[in-house]
Amino acid sequence: MSDHSNQPNEQAEPEKTGTSTPATGAAMGNLDTHSARYAERTAGMTASEIRALFAVASRPEVVSLAGGMPNLAALPLDSLSEEVARLIAEQGQAALQYGSAHGVPELREQICEIMALEGISGQPDDIMVTVGSQMALDLVTRIFCDPGDVVLAEGPSYVGAMGAFSTYQADVVHVAMDEHGLQPDALRAAIEELHGQGRTIKFLYTIPNFHNPAGVTLAEQRRPEILEICSRHGIMVLEDNPYGLLGFEGQTYSSLRSLDPDNVVYLGSFSKTFASGLRVGWVLAPHAVREKLVLAAESATLCPPTLNQMIVSRYLSTHDWLGQIKSFREQYRERRDAMLSALEQHMPAGCDWTRPDGGFFVWLTAPEGVDTKAMLPRAVTQRVAYASGTGFYRDGLGTRQMRLSFCYPTPERIHEGVRRLANTLNEELDLLRTFGSGGGRELSGPQTPSPDTA
Amino acid sequence: MSDHSNQPNEQAEPEKTGTSTPATGAAMGNLDTHSARYAERTAGMTASEIRALFAVASRPEVVSLAGGMPNLAALPLDSLSEEVARLIAEQGQAALQYGSAHGVPELREQICEIMALEGISGQPDDIMVTVGSQMALDLVTRIFCDPGDVVLAEGPSYVGAMGAFSTYQADVVHVAMDEHGLQPDALRAAIEELHGQGRTIKFLYTIPNFHNPAGVTLAEQRRPEILEICSRHGIMVLEDNPYGLLGFEGQTYSSLRSLDPDNVVYLGSFSKTFASGLRVGWVLAPHAVREKLVLAAESATLCPPTLNQMIVSRYLSTHDWLGQIKSFREQYRERRDAMLSALEQHMPAGCDWTRPDGGFFVWLTAPEGVDTKAMLPRAVTQRVAYASGTGFYRDGLGTRQMRLSFCYPTPERIHEGVRRLANTLNEELDLLRTFGSGGGRELSGPQTPSPDTA
Repeated sequence: MSDHSNQPNEQAEPEKTGTSTPATGAAMGNLDTHSARYAERTAGMTASEIRALFAVASRPEVVSLAGGMPNLAALPLDSLSEEVARLIAEQGQAALQYGSAHGVPELREQICEIMALEGISGQPDDIMVTVGSQMALDLVTRIFCDPGDVVLAEGPSYVGAMGAFSTYQADVVHVAMDEHGLQPDALRAAIEELHGQGRTIKFLYTIPNFHNPAGVTLAEQRRPEILEICSRHGIMVLEDNPYGLLGFEGQTYSSLRSLDPDNVVYLGSFSKTFASGLRVGWVLAPHAVREKLVLAAESATLCPPTLNQMIVSRYLSTHDWLGQIKSFREQYRERRDAMLSALEQHMPAGCDWTRPDGGFFVWLTAPEGVDTKAMLPRAVTQRVAYASGTGFYRDGLGTRQMRLSFCYPTPERIHEGVRRLANTLNEELDLLRTFGSGGGRELSGPQTPSPDTA
Repeated sequence: MSDHSNQPNEQAEPEKTGTSTPATGAAMGNLDTHSARYAERTAGMTASEIRALFAVASRPEVVSLAGGMPNLAALPLDSLSEEVARLIAEQGQAALQYGSAHGVPELREQICEIMALEGISGQPDDIMVTVGSQMALDLVTRIFCDPGDVVLAEGPSYVGAMGAFSTYQADVVHVAMDEHGLQPDALRAAIEELHGQGRTIKFLYTIPNFHNPAGVTLAEQRRPEILEICSRHGIMVLEDNPYGLLGFEGQTYSSLRSLDPDNVVYLGSFSKTFASGLRVGWVLAPHAVREKLVLAAESATLCPPTLNQMIVSRYLSTHDWLGQIKSFREQYRERRDAMLSALEQHMPAGCDWTRPDGGFFVWLTAPEGVDTKAMLPRAVTQRVAYASGTGFYRDGLGTRQMRLSFCYPTPERIHEGVRRLANTLNEELDLLRTFGSGGGRELSGPQTPSPDTA
């Protein structure tokens, strides 16, 4: 792991542990002398379906449309290197020392300026810096969720968030989306049904902008309605917005936080607009919630890395960070265009897919009968990888769906990858026509609703 | 927060949240619209007694003997700055990108070499890199502890570890120490009593070398005995060893992990031997446990910061890191000497304290009747701060004790701080002699056992 070309090997690292599902853990119980000692929650910690794909993605001959790694090729490494050198030489005693769990004050002020771009007026004191947004997801769930509590989430939803919810033994209940994002009627119906069952709903988890994995954006006119529904039922909203500044036309949307500051906990990140490997994200929360989050963070990591926060802060004050985001946006738009035109050109009839206006992902629905998880090994044989849809649901949906990422590969590789994927799908459809859709595999659950079929 | 002299201000940051104990949270419930929504575990998240001290420590006129910040003044910032610049310029695409939750492979190999200094033969695959040791404490507790499980820990014990145990609603039961560390007989008695009550003991948490806060080291001859007791009763051992290479004569001790690899989970850290602000620690665990830890880590932060791991790795391969540790050791020895001689010179009769052979801390026991927590505001008025003893216990012990850190202030400041502390104690003892030990304050619980009084 010494240069860029080797980088995917690092992503591939988790492969060895990818087989450690509870099932195999139980089967191999005699090898784990600690197996009887684990906490109850540990049974729910399983390797995500995407994890094994990182290993696949590491083979250079495979075009990976599976991962969510940002494209960092456009970063100004030389000037960044100089600034970091200056930072360590001049402020190393502070940068290499413990800090507070709350985060570096100067960075929290700068974060307020960034959030203002999406209409948020937050106070630096109400921000806590986290080790990536993932840590914020973990801590928000930690302070709010008891085992058996319900978290509402779009169907499909972000794998990492659902992992955090599972860790604290919260149950995810999906709410249907369409091309305009989360459906208010479906939200109302889900709440009524759950409350009818006596369930406790702790919050709605939502990615309103350029959704991962669905690639859709919550329509402006739905936003107040969704907030009103949640507020009326005493349900907090957890707004996850890593892609908000990556709208391909430079467009932004009214953040949910800006519309209802008291009932929304907001998550932001520098992973997609600057550098994912620094692991700097943040949470903006109502004051009392932020206080609890700081206590939880002290117990989790004592404090986020000081150096990383100071690097981000210095980058923001010495570089044209908005210009850099524009440059990222343009690259991702070019890749989105490459993917959409390749899909148009190569995909067999009966396929449908979302047309994202920003972000990293296209969500594709294959024709009736196709099982994207079962098809994946055959796709890899054809040297293309994707993330199969079931990993993004906790209720068995998604068998016909897949997530295609256009963030990391070049436009040429994207085109080639989609061509290979279309070949795989065509062969699959040939088999289905010959042997019927039963072909040894069972469909799990209904195939609707999803962003494409609703 | 822009240079070294301002650094303590950052430490002081948490002050504003320091008042957010559950008690005030409940009293101010009408201000927190989310108060009814918190998880049960959140009630146990309280600001540590040490937290408020960071604010005090930030005032330049106060000599803080309270914090545990390492002295980074001896770090070679110029050459480090150059190496980090080279790293970002040459490998920035990898250093700024997501990595695996397992950690950078090259660093895990180097960690094996470091652990070999204390007799450990570990495999890189069985190491997971964490965001400081604190994250390892959090994740080990997460995968092992259900609410109501018992964790055994020395009395006194590390505040941050007890915070992690509380987060997962595990109960800490203290085991007495003396000047040779954890007492095997007390361990046997505690296990028998707890098992008699039908309690489940998940692990023994121990800092065998240069204990925080007690400043004592577990005697070599006790180590196999402690391990045998735990193994016989099916109790795992969690060995926390951040100070192991900071023995003032360069001495090291047999790590518990080296004596019983299958039943010990081992925690290491670069916070005290290199740079705390990078937040790079590690856990070495039996293979099956390490697999669970990686799954838990993915849910907690996705991955530790790649840049920080590569900085540590490059530092280890380009700098005389062993020479640097020797230099740290010599500085801390000089400070320990300053503290011990000042204590000898100034402390009133009836005080006793530990004489550490390494690490950061002296544990002081005041004469009968003194309540160190109640005395703290008066000490601060005299411009000296310490960590009062009750924060290091979960059972009410420690009212007569305090932790004195010699890691951060210069020898001159240490001497002056101890002189001021002695004045405070003398005034306190005068008051006690005049008004009796009841003087408006109640003692909480017996004052033994502790490292000094057992």
